[in-house]
Amino acid sequence: MEQIKLFELSKEYLEQLRQAIEAEDKVFIKESMEGANEADVAALLDELDMQEALYVLRVLDDELAADILIELDEDDQFKIITSMEHTELAALIDHMDSDDAVDILNQLGVNEREDVISHLQEKEKSAHILDLLRYDEDSAGGLMAKEFIKANQNWTVVQTINEIRRQAENVEKIYSIYVVDNKERLLGRVSLKRIILSAADTKIADIFEDDQISVPTHMRQEEVAEIMRKYDLESIPVVNVKNKLVGRITIDDILDVIREQSEEDIQAMTGLSDDVEESDSIFRIAKARLPWLLIGVVGGLMGAGIIDFFEDGLQKVIALASFIPLVAATGGNVGIQSSSLVVQTLAAKSVFSDTPWQRFIKGFLIALVNGVVLGGFVLAVVVFVYKHEFIFGVTIGLAMFCVVLLASFMGTVTPILLNRFGVNPAIASGPFITTANDLLGLAVYFGVAMLLLNL
Amino acid sequence: MEQIKLFELSKEYLEQLRQAIEAEDKVFIKESMEGANEADVAALLDELDMQEALYVLRVLDDELAADILIELDEDDQFKIITSMEHTELAALIDHMDSDDAVDILNQLGVNEREDVISHLQEKEKSAHILDLLRYDEDSAGGLMAKEFIKANQNWTVVQTINEIRRQAENVEKIYSIYVVDNKERLLGRVSLKRIILSAADTKIADIFEDDQISVPTHMRQEEVAEIMRKYDLESIPVVNVKNKLVGRITIDDILDVIREQSEEDIQAMTGLSDDVEESDSIFRIAKARLPWLLIGVVGGLMGAGIIDFFEDGLQKVIALASFIPLVAATGGNVGIQSSSLVVQTLAAKSVFSDTPWQRFIKGFLIALVNGVVLGGFVLAVVVFVYKHEFIFGVTIGLAMFCVVLLASFMGTVTPILLNRFGVNPAIASGPFITTANDLLGLAVYFGVAMLLLNL
Repeated sequence: MEQIKLFELSKEYLEQLRQAIEAEDKVFIKESMEGANEADVAALLDELDMQEALYVLRVLDDELAADILIELDEDDQFKIITSMEHTELAALIDHMDSDDAVDILNQLGVNEREDVISHLQEKEKSAHILDLLRYDEDSAGGLMAKEFIKANQNWTVVQTINEIRRQAENVEKIYSIYVVDNKERLLGRVSLKRIILSAADTKIADIFEDDQISVPTHMRQEEVAEIMRKYDLESIPVVNVKNKLVGRITIDDILDVIREQSEEDIQAMTGLSDDVEESDSIFRIAKARLPWLLIGVVGGLMGAGIIDFFEDGLQKVIALASFIPLVAATGGNVGIQSSSLVVQTLAAKSVFSDTPWQRFIKGFLIALVNGVVLGGFVLAVVVFVYKHEFIFGVTIGLAMFCVVLLASFMGTVTPILLNRFGVNPAIASGPFITTANDLLGLAVYFGVAMLLLNL
Repeated sequence: MEQIKLFELSKEYLEQLRQAIEAEDKVFIKESMEGANEADVAALLDELDMQEALYVLRVLDDELAADILIELDEDDQFKIITSMEHTELAALIDHMDSDDAVDILNQLGVNEREDVISHLQEKEKSAHILDLLRYDEDSAGGLMAKEFIKANQNWTVVQTINEIRRQAENVEKIYSIYVVDNKERLLGRVSLKRIILSAADTKIADIFEDDQISVPTHMRQEEVAEIMRKYDLESIPVVNVKNKLVGRITIDDILDVIREQSEEDIQAMTGLSDDVEESDSIFRIAKARLPWLLIGVVGGLMGAGIIDFFEDGLQKVIALASFIPLVAATGGNVGIQSSSLVVQTLAAKSVFSDTPWQRFIKGFLIALVNGVVLGGFVLAVVVFVYKHEFIFGVTIGLAMFCVVLLASFMGTVTPILLNRFGVNPAIASGPFITTANDLLGLAVYFGVAMLLLNL
């Protein structure tokens, strides 16, 4: 056994595979992939073009092809499923868990989706899928799968084992067995370990744990992730408003949620308008970056307008120009620091979190401390190092102080407002708000200078 | 059963608890926390001061107190374990899994640590702990626990069940049973489901899966996290250089790794010098922010020096001052976008990743596209909207173009270099590099202007 099973995931194998596809060498493709992990094959297919990847999937068994399709990059996945025949796609979906099937079907239009579902062989699966499609993709209902083991509290251990045997094909990983009453209401769970260690005629009611944590179907996926992390759970049952057990969310789906969320935050902070990867084409990456860069440029041009407005004053005291980058950079840095702290707290909210008003006061006090230190430092440097007049030093120092307070205020308030309107608050650390901060900072800077220097 | 078990996690209960601590009402504390989840109690204790939290832990049973101690915030945890008697701490550690015990002990000095270990009751546990302490905290060895179930391939199902029974107390969650040969080398794994569904006299050798993925003890924790995410694993076996099974890493520890890493990245990007939370004191937050802000300010003051140097030219064409914020902001935005894309790819490295040289070429081409678009746009606005001379528009546009190329270059190269020297590359998106970009941008801007406008 290898230390880490990466089968032949190499550039050499990729080349061999390309040649085999070209030569339509189905035997090589099938044999070389035998025993390979689906995630590894998916990483390989992500490197091929769509026609090549589709060819490989068609060569492989439906079950393996289904597993691979689930693991593909979203872009490649979309291209492939929209190129497949509906019957072909249905044959793969027949081998998927209901949650993965729904993720695939959600990428199709309503009509295509219904047509694919009509071609499914397993009627229980299509019922599950139709049920799951009702939920919002980003909610617990949209994440859950219908494949799990449940046991009635009145069953014995041996009855439960029979149920596990009956479902063995459908439920790959069991984790816990959920215990329900006669009305299918969730009562708790019992671990497989407990089942193994109990006598065959033991009643489930006597051995299950009733401190089970569950989530309602409508809960946002980020909240589900936070609950599973907090309580160290590898699976969590999902209940409807009547506390009826309707599904199960497993930790692998949650890891994907966490990864997506962190990528979205970074994207929002860096101003990418689209989910791009380094492997995408040059034009695609350039295009994803342009909108935000343009907003920054428009902001910069508006800044030029502001400075133009103060041109007379600037002409008299040309040294004012020298400190424009200082004021702008500090405003940007303070704004990003304030907003990211608020964003972090908004994500991990607890009952003990500060109210918006407490946050605001606290942010103000922190800014006061930093503003005084930075303003004082700048005053000293301008007067003693750059040998400017004292009143000029006071001007720059006071402008710095005002900009720190203002940028901190904007950085605290913006994410709270964005969050309240249901927008990802991480945007507040991005270029749009930073640009707005720059403009405000410039106006404050020249405003202070005009007043203090009598320009 | 409640939908989500939050027991009485409320500000009211917190107040009651404080009063009970004051009144030394042990009965109330014990009874009100009965059945509560350890993560919830820990969230509560994080709100109390150290003496109060310590009092609560002393009132509760050792087993519950041990579980709660593990779940506390790192700061509070440190304060509490350093205030405890060594015998007291040892009594709690006796109830912990070896990986959690090591996390606690790693916070103590070498002498304290040894003294605590010498007070442990369970000799097997202290041997495990001494073994685990040898590994780097951020490696697979530092993450793994010694509590897991292993079965020899020659055992029968019933022998394996007996082993599970023997270890039932120590191993709370089983996930998989690892299969080893007579020399303790990892061969594969068998699921509990398979054990339940197989006849009692079945040989383990006949039912185990040999496609098991394992990690070596020295692997970095971020890589372990990526493997577990990629292959959808809830636990992974850890082996030494001789492929001997030495431990197990579970998904709950990996979730914490992922969370820490994402927080570290955001901190690096926003320039916090310390891991602060919104609930920390004003001075602590202000202090964590100041170093990076000061670097930004020093950068800004150096920028003032650069502009001073060009003061004669600026005096002649005062309009040059107006476009300083434009140039600086664009440089900053482009730099952050380039570096964050590289950082993202460095984190999820694969055999198909571009080489540094390919990255460099690609980044250059993307910058070329964006530079031409932004430079052209700025030229047009400066000439047609702001009614400057054509040569002045060309100056600003060309400077923009150069700044985009330069910032993109810096943004691509810096994280690659930082990564090579073992520094978190996310710092490249932070204020330090942004400040450096600003200065370079200013120099380029005035350089271009001096040349084209003959100043």
